[in-house]
Amino acid sequence: MSATGLLDELAGIGRNPTSGGYDRLAWTGVDAECRQWFEQCAEALGLEVEVDRNGNLWAWWNESAPGSVLLLGSHLDSVPSGGAFDGPLGIASAFAAIGDLQRDGFVPSRPVAVVAFADEEGARFGVACAGSRLMTGALAPSTALALTDASGVTMAEAMRAAGLRPETLGPDEARLRRIGEFIELHVEQGHLPGEGHQLGLADAPLGLATEIWPHGRWRVDIRGSQNHAGTTPLADRDDPMIGLARLILSVRERAELAGVLATVGKVRVHPGAVNAVPGLASAWIDARGADESRVREVIAGIGVDAVEESWTASTPFDTVLTAALAATIGHPVPLLPSGAGHDAGVLALAGVPTAMVLVRNPSGISHAPEEYAEPDDCDRGVEALVAILRARAS
Amino acid sequence: MSATGLLDELAGIGRNPTSGGYDRLAWTGVDAECRQWFEQCAEALGLEVEVDRNGNLWAWWNESAPGSVLLLGSHLDSVPSGGAFDGPLGIASAFAAIGDLQRDGFVPSRPVAVVAFADEEGARFGVACAGSRLMTGALAPSTALALTDASGVTMAEAMRAAGLRPETLGPDEARLRRIGEFIELHVEQGHLPGEGHQLGLADAPLGLATEIWPHGRWRVDIRGSQNHAGTTPLADRDDPMIGLARLILSVRERAELAGVLATVGKVRVHPGAVNAVPGLASAWIDARGADESRVREVIAGIGVDAVEESWTASTPFDTVLTAALAATIGHPVPLLPSGAGHDAGVLALAGVPTAMVLVRNPSGISHAPEEYAEPDDCDRGVEALVAILRARAS
Repeated sequence: MSATGLLDELAGIGRNPTSGGYDRLAWTGVDAECRQWFEQCAEALGLEVEVDRNGNLWAWWNESAPGSVLLLGSHLDSVPSGGAFDGPLGIASAFAAIGDLQRDGFVPSRPVAVVAFADEEGARFGVACAGSRLMTGALAPSTALALTDASGVTMAEAMRAAGLRPETLGPDEARLRRIGEFIELHVEQGHLPGEGHQLGLADAPLGLATEIWPHGRWRVDIRGSQNHAGTTPLADRDDPMIGLARLILSVRERAELAGVLATVGKVRVHPGAVNAVPGLASAWIDARGADESRVREVIAGIGVDAVEESWTASTPFDTVLTAALAATIGHPVPLLPSGAGHDAGVLALAGVPTAMVLVRNPSGISHAPEEYAEPDDCDRGVEALVAILRARAS
Repeated sequence: MSATGLLDELAGIGRNPTSGGYDRLAWTGVDAECRQWFEQCAEALGLEVEVDRNGNLWAWWNESAPGSVLLLGSHLDSVPSGGAFDGPLGIASAFAAIGDLQRDGFVPSRPVAVVAFADEEGARFGVACAGSRLMTGALAPSTALALTDASGVTMAEAMRAAGLRPETLGPDEARLRRIGEFIELHVEQGHLPGEGHQLGLADAPLGLATEIWPHGRWRVDIRGSQNHAGTTPLADRDDPMIGLARLILSVRERAELAGVLATVGKVRVHPGAVNAVPGLASAWIDARGADESRVREVIAGIGVDAVEESWTASTPFDTVLTAALAATIGHPVPLLPSGAGHDAGVLALAGVPTAMVLVRNPSGISHAPEEYAEPDDCDRGVEALVAILRARAS
């Protein structure tokens, strides 16, 4: 079956009827349904399914063959009201490629695996790429398990409710060392100002990623004095919403000056009652760009204390592997930096030779219901994976 | 027992360990514990407890006596991280006053009741005074039952989970017509700019309310284009957070110009992910003041469409009853307007002769953990209710 045919099987799972996007947050019932789809795809191809100690799903093709593992895959979870392609396209394309090769009688000379890394978006517990970071040791199990979602549910509770044993979480070095290379296929995200595409993808169905931009998340807590909205004179208020408003405008202004991307996409107001002057307003800032010092300039320039919740330096992908893939694919493949973070970046940081194949997205819109890729372009992605498997596992 | 003694029995229920305030939202387990305390107080005084068709609690003293009902009481629920006095003080003071009179052998010549109106703050479902509004018919049952909390639980589901039958909700005219007068005792809320007190309460332990200010709630929905925070150029963003920030600042500026109170205490951002440019930001505006036209001026001046979620015109309390109470209390009692809304206002609008006794709050802070009243001042409040019961039910 084609990648888009496999994605169609997921189309009804976690769809938000209001926005038309997908709510597939980690360790929810919807996430479990997506994981079930993964298992069904694997079983249809005769691949053996395994859940690793961190809840990542693996489907093995010829696992007992000698040599290092050629790893394909991506993730299944989404941001709230996310698109249909971010994550699942990489997995569906890997399964479609394996199906095509099996029909041709191809048997890989080394182990091939398709992985679905758990909780990539971090939309529920606030930490992106939790599954891959736990595997590489970049995220401590105790830290992960204590993270809470908006309702106060811990990751430990959520994983247990999903049938996992959170006490098994932790670095998985033996598994990591077996991986010869990881190739993540992903829908294109973003475009140049005013353009529908990033440089090069206007005329090409596929691209390859050169690096992931330096990227950080910061939290700003603005404290005030909680009080009654109907009885507290304006002059006596210490209303943190005023500081929040100024912060939002300042983040945008500083980002424009520095020429980087910065976003306030999440805020939390306490107590959040219509009739109370809040006592606390918190804002999360996401900032990234080609140049680390300019990203940090934005945070330094906002004039309030910001807690760094995460920082990832520029992550280059493997240049040798990327050049080899470009040659294998056999038609011109533009090279692009990625503003978005990925499990591929986590594995690259852990020393795994890693590359990313990008599939054209006509609008560049991602993390939104409008995210899209043409079926023809998706087919080109599957063909690239077929060529890669033939070239590297014969 | 004294009113503060009775309040001490509530001190452990719903306390937020982080803020030190109280989370007693309607129809939660904590609310049920508070309602249980009401029943225990009533039983200790030999009062008969009744739950009316809208979930309001009534404790009857001499219900079968002839004449109209002399009604005391307030509410038990709180805003998130609210104070210990807003609501429960009025109920504890009514029970304490009845206890004092019973010890003196006093038997009322007419029915006396203590009421705990359900869901006064509206902190969970967004509509204040739901219990009293349902009783008077100001809130339609179908509207109320369909309201949802932040987790998507409907009021119908929440009431059913609390052991009530939501299908019984609706106007209760016979009950309303039996009420001869309603006297709500309440902790003072608010103060003059720069002062610790409202006019008059610096030197007086008690006050009486003359009216509730005109008061409205509006919602503003700012729509944008949801997109990926790491890949969307600033110039191509339609980020509703920018509009939200400008709105917050504009509301404050307009309120200062108009000389009224206006507050943005609640916002909702969709999808609310750190790594997504939001597609929608909603803000709730609470605005009130002595003069209706100036309140409306603020909303007209913000330059964006605002949906009026509620509007209550100025609600005067019964001047004859209020004057009689002032004479009964027997020491100088300042008269003050109330910026805060109350069930007393709902009953006044429905034609019940209504008055409010206010107990001094040294800081004026309310809807916050710092809300406070001195035990001596609370005793003065109970004495006032004793004098009122003696004067009006002998």
